[in-house]
Amino acid sequence: MPPPITATLGGAVQSNARLGGCCRAPARTSVPAARTGPRGSGRMAAAPTEQMAGLAVANGAPVPGGKPKKEKKPKAEQADKPKQQPKSEKKKETKLGLTAKKDGDFGEWYSQVVVESEMISYYDVSGCYILRPYSFAIWDEIKNWFDAQIKEMGVQNAYFPLFITEDVLMTEKDHVEGFAPEVAWVTRSGNSELDRPIAIRPTSETVMYPYYAQWIRSHRDLPLRLNQWTNVVRWEFKHPTPFIRSREFLWQEGHTCFATQKEAETEVYDILDLYRRVYEELLAVPVCKGTKSSKEKFAGALFTTTVEAFVPQNGRGIQAATSHCLGQNFSKMFGIEFETEARERAHAWQNSWGLTTRSIGVMVMTHGDDKGLVLPPRVAQVQAVLIPIPNSKLGEAAVAALAARAADIEKALKAAGVRLTVDRRDNYTPGWKYNYWELRGVPLRIELGPKDMDAGVAMLAQRDTGAKQSLPWDQLAAAVPKLLEQIQAEMYGRARSEFDACIERVSTWDEFMAALDRKHMALGPWCDEEAAEEDVKKRSACKDAMGAKSLCIPLEQPELAPGTLCFVTGKPAKNFCLFGRSY
Amino acid sequence: MPPPITATLGGAVQSNARLGGCCRAPARTSVPAARTGPRGSGRMAAAPTEQMAGLAVANGAPVPGGKPKKEKKPKAEQADKPKQQPKSEKKKETKLGLTAKKDGDFGEWYSQVVVESEMISYYDVSGCYILRPYSFAIWDEIKNWFDAQIKEMGVQNAYFPLFITEDVLMTEKDHVEGFAPEVAWVTRSGNSELDRPIAIRPTSETVMYPYYAQWIRSHRDLPLRLNQWTNVVRWEFKHPTPFIRSREFLWQEGHTCFATQKEAETEVYDILDLYRRVYEELLAVPVCKGTKSSKEKFAGALFTTTVEAFVPQNGRGIQAATSHCLGQNFSKMFGIEFETEARERAHAWQNSWGLTTRSIGVMVMTHGDDKGLVLPPRVAQVQAVLIPIPNSKLGEAAVAALAARAADIEKALKAAGVRLTVDRRDNYTPGWKYNYWELRGVPLRIELGPKDMDAGVAMLAQRDTGAKQSLPWDQLAAAVPKLLEQIQAEMYGRARSEFDACIERVSTWDEFMAALDRKHMALGPWCDEEAAEEDVKKRSACKDAMGAKSLCIPLEQPELAPGTLCFVTGKPAKNFCLFGRSY
Repeated sequence: MPPPITATLGGAVQSNARLGGCCRAPARTSVPAARTGPRGSGRMAAAPTEQMAGLAVANGAPVPGGKPKKEKKPKAEQADKPKQQPKSEKKKETKLGLTAKKDGDFGEWYSQVVVESEMISYYDVSGCYILRPYSFAIWDEIKNWFDAQIKEMGVQNAYFPLFITEDVLMTEKDHVEGFAPEVAWVTRSGNSELDRPIAIRPTSETVMYPYYAQWIRSHRDLPLRLNQWTNVVRWEFKHPTPFIRSREFLWQEGHTCFATQKEAETEVYDILDLYRRVYEELLAVPVCKGTKSSKEKFAGALFTTTVEAFVPQNGRGIQAATSHCLGQNFSKMFGIEFETEARERAHAWQNSWGLTTRSIGVMVMTHGDDKGLVLPPRVAQVQAVLIPIPNSKLGEAAVAALAARAADIEKALKAAGVRLTVDRRDNYTPGWKYNYWELRGVPLRIELGPKDMDAGVAMLAQRDTGAKQSLPWDQLAAAVPKLLEQIQAEMYGRARSEFDACIERVSTWDEFMAALDRKHMALGPWCDEEAAEEDVKKRSACKDAMGAKSLCIPLEQPELAPGTLCFVTGKPAKNFCLFGRSY
Repeated sequence: MPPPITATLGGAVQSNARLGGCCRAPARTSVPAARTGPRGSGRMAAAPTEQMAGLAVANGAPVPGGKPKKEKKPKAEQADKPKQQPKSEKKKETKLGLTAKKDGDFGEWYSQVVVESEMISYYDVSGCYILRPYSFAIWDEIKNWFDAQIKEMGVQNAYFPLFITEDVLMTEKDHVEGFAPEVAWVTRSGNSELDRPIAIRPTSETVMYPYYAQWIRSHRDLPLRLNQWTNVVRWEFKHPTPFIRSREFLWQEGHTCFATQKEAETEVYDILDLYRRVYEELLAVPVCKGTKSSKEKFAGALFTTTVEAFVPQNGRGIQAATSHCLGQNFSKMFGIEFETEARERAHAWQNSWGLTTRSIGVMVMTHGDDKGLVLPPRVAQVQAVLIPIPNSKLGEAAVAALAARAADIEKALKAAGVRLTVDRRDNYTPGWKYNYWELRGVPLRIELGPKDMDAGVAMLAQRDTGAKQSLPWDQLAAAVPKLLEQIQAEMYGRARSEFDACIERVSTWDEFMAALDRKHMALGPWCDEEAAEEDVKKRSACKDAMGAKSLCIPLEQPELAPGTLCFVTGKPAKNFCLFGRSY
């Protein structure tokens, strides 16, 4: 990451109100909402005019009351969960911005931010959501980066069918038990009943492995490393949440076979580190790498590694991506055998690993604030918005000069690789536009007004901190890419500090419960027994909060002093495990 | 397209045996199978040794008999069509290559070529296929090119759910009638019956348009241009064929809204031309652009434009991609209204357009021959394969020099942007490798043997024509990219000539039937009435062949002389229409 460029640019960067060690401390509302300085704050904070009321560019949320032909609206499936439409969709479209606070009703805040920013539309099949272009572009960034990385490693893309026959799905017993309750079944085509119901893939182990068994004969056919980018369906009945838990979601799933356990295990951790980098380097979201407990591992796996993220506002951990070593479990069930160099028969060692659109939700939760999204520059579809501010008192020539300068800046920044939009709409005030782009989390706003024209500068305002600086035009092309990288690094740095501050070392049950009460995670020595974990879940549940569970056994372990006892059972501890309430 | 480089390269390019005006003439087997020249043809044609028998690198087709644990093989769904496993899968794995002839049993040839080349595996749900990396890479090439083109036009990607409620699917009457018999229904999750069955999208008009109605308010919200790359399901009961007709397939579907009919129509034809370019410029497959008859248009569309391809071997046209103008039909049904600049209410003008993985099948049918695939260089995952040929009599130093030279050539060609593979496997003979890469259709084989080492050259053999030339090492990096482009252009040129020669101008019913008997298409003047088309279908059917139908009304029309009569009804003709038997 490049060093801060404040000094070289000479701009006044505001101190970062949110940089703090404790996860409870930073008030997201402390970022100043209105600009101070040469431009009147009145204009910036101006409410949209009446003229804007009919124009929905700014607010793509479904507003059922606002349209004729109401009877054509899709009727909500009579679903398990009534709270499908967030309250935000009811408010008047003239108003821009969120009514819920992130530190208040977090769930409602999240619903509002993903809908109002036009990332998501709620859909009339419960638990399914529309990924609008503004979020899909982020998924594309993640895909492009990750896909290039795994291709570099020798993984190839393929596409396996959506459907699985019942027989094949049932091949691996633990696996099917893990998924059976969530499987959606096709039983009819047109008006004909199918002879046998066909499952929609919840994951593709059982889709792929019968064919792996056919394709692999010799050690020369190994490794076989395939990946696919697909949709999968898990008909869950837990409360659905956009990105975080949905009945259909998008993901990549890698499925690989190796001749030796060592090769397989190396890949498991290589992939896990790519997942860490997706979160930390693209989404600026800190995670903890670890291994799942035997209770929490993937159904049918030898062991599961995971990157775990955390949401301080509600004190809940969230599984961010998993990389499984399947061992020889599936290869024995599906007969994936090969002839070794010594001409002996052996079963392949297998991995599977997946990263989903959940990642976008975790990013929104980590960085968003009461004004809306805050996007890390590396994945933002629009990295900077240029807002020309023609004053109504300007003469024709001055207006033309301002437009020409805006075009020059646009050209220079695009040539410098910045994903820039110029907001030239003439039916909105600058203040309204500021709110509009802040809601969408665009990392950098560049203002160009009459006084900037006189001074030969543009004003840069950061979305993350609200910091402002003015810069001469000829420095923009060099400075803006650096500033975007600086914003990326600082967003990660703040989130990392917050994450770390939310982990408490505990050695007794009381300390553990106190940490949970503070909405923190707890890292404690434990005996690594499934019964202990069941115990934690039961004993930590109370009327206001779900029970805690193990998030992961971190790869980076504190030193375990001899004689250390499990904080749950009092038996000898085997390692440190991270526990917390969780999504 | 660059000019032929034969002259500058000094190599002896063989005359093209397949370049011919008549669609029946070219014998695909006329390409010499064995190399003549300094290397012994015996080595090249050598059968695989016993040692190879156990190694499945070369033959990914399922060979049910060849494995233990037979009971773990997926059982074929007791499906509608018994002929799911091509006969090729039964033959011994020691043998490389196809047993069927393209001009013989075309269907069997096609099954063999897509399986043996490792493009496809048959799957145990009837009508579903596995796209293996070797075909998926081609889909990725198509995706990358087309996606960049439409983004340039202002289209954005999004993702809408897989599921549709029954109510919404039923909104547009013609549309639902078109798809209802093919819709797959989910009725159960886990062990619970759903309250109401949910459809799997056969296409997404009805998924998307209720939301378009919510998002669009003003002329300022238009155009709205979204696209998605997804899977769709059409549970057809016609004979399934890999790529060409499958129950699940991959495609892009664009769905756009405009304020005016003119803008919508412009886009329809712009997209149609992109489809033409995918076929002609990427896949080297000639197509005819046209409009579908009212009988053949998309269910619910105002009009449908199409690119039509043709398979000379069986005389069947094939719809290659379609771009529909939906008019205001769906916008009226779904209430997609906006306020015009004049503050009036108006319904949006809509288009939808789609291109599927069928395109890969059409490419295979067009270019493949009795030795296997023939891939156009622009979409081939491997554009050239370099085969070092160490002679067993060579000393250690000579072997090392040959390996070093191969590495140099690899480096130079990769730096020149050529997608090159070096086949260094030591357990296959060169002849076996030639067959292996020919089966996979790699456009260019580069051989480097002891005599080439002495002469400072490499031998280049084209897959499409069998033409060979030797080139000095230092010319390779410049020559190979040009040669690949030349191959691309010549493949298209030959296919174009063949396509054009398969269109017969007819003016009477007898001429029409004679053209069909010659496995040709017929371009005739007609009255453009649905009843006439029904008549054609009935009267042209016979015990050996299905009835013909209209393929398209070509955009490029011959001059229609006054008084010309319809070749079917004898009524005044309105235009020329292309008819043929069809997929």
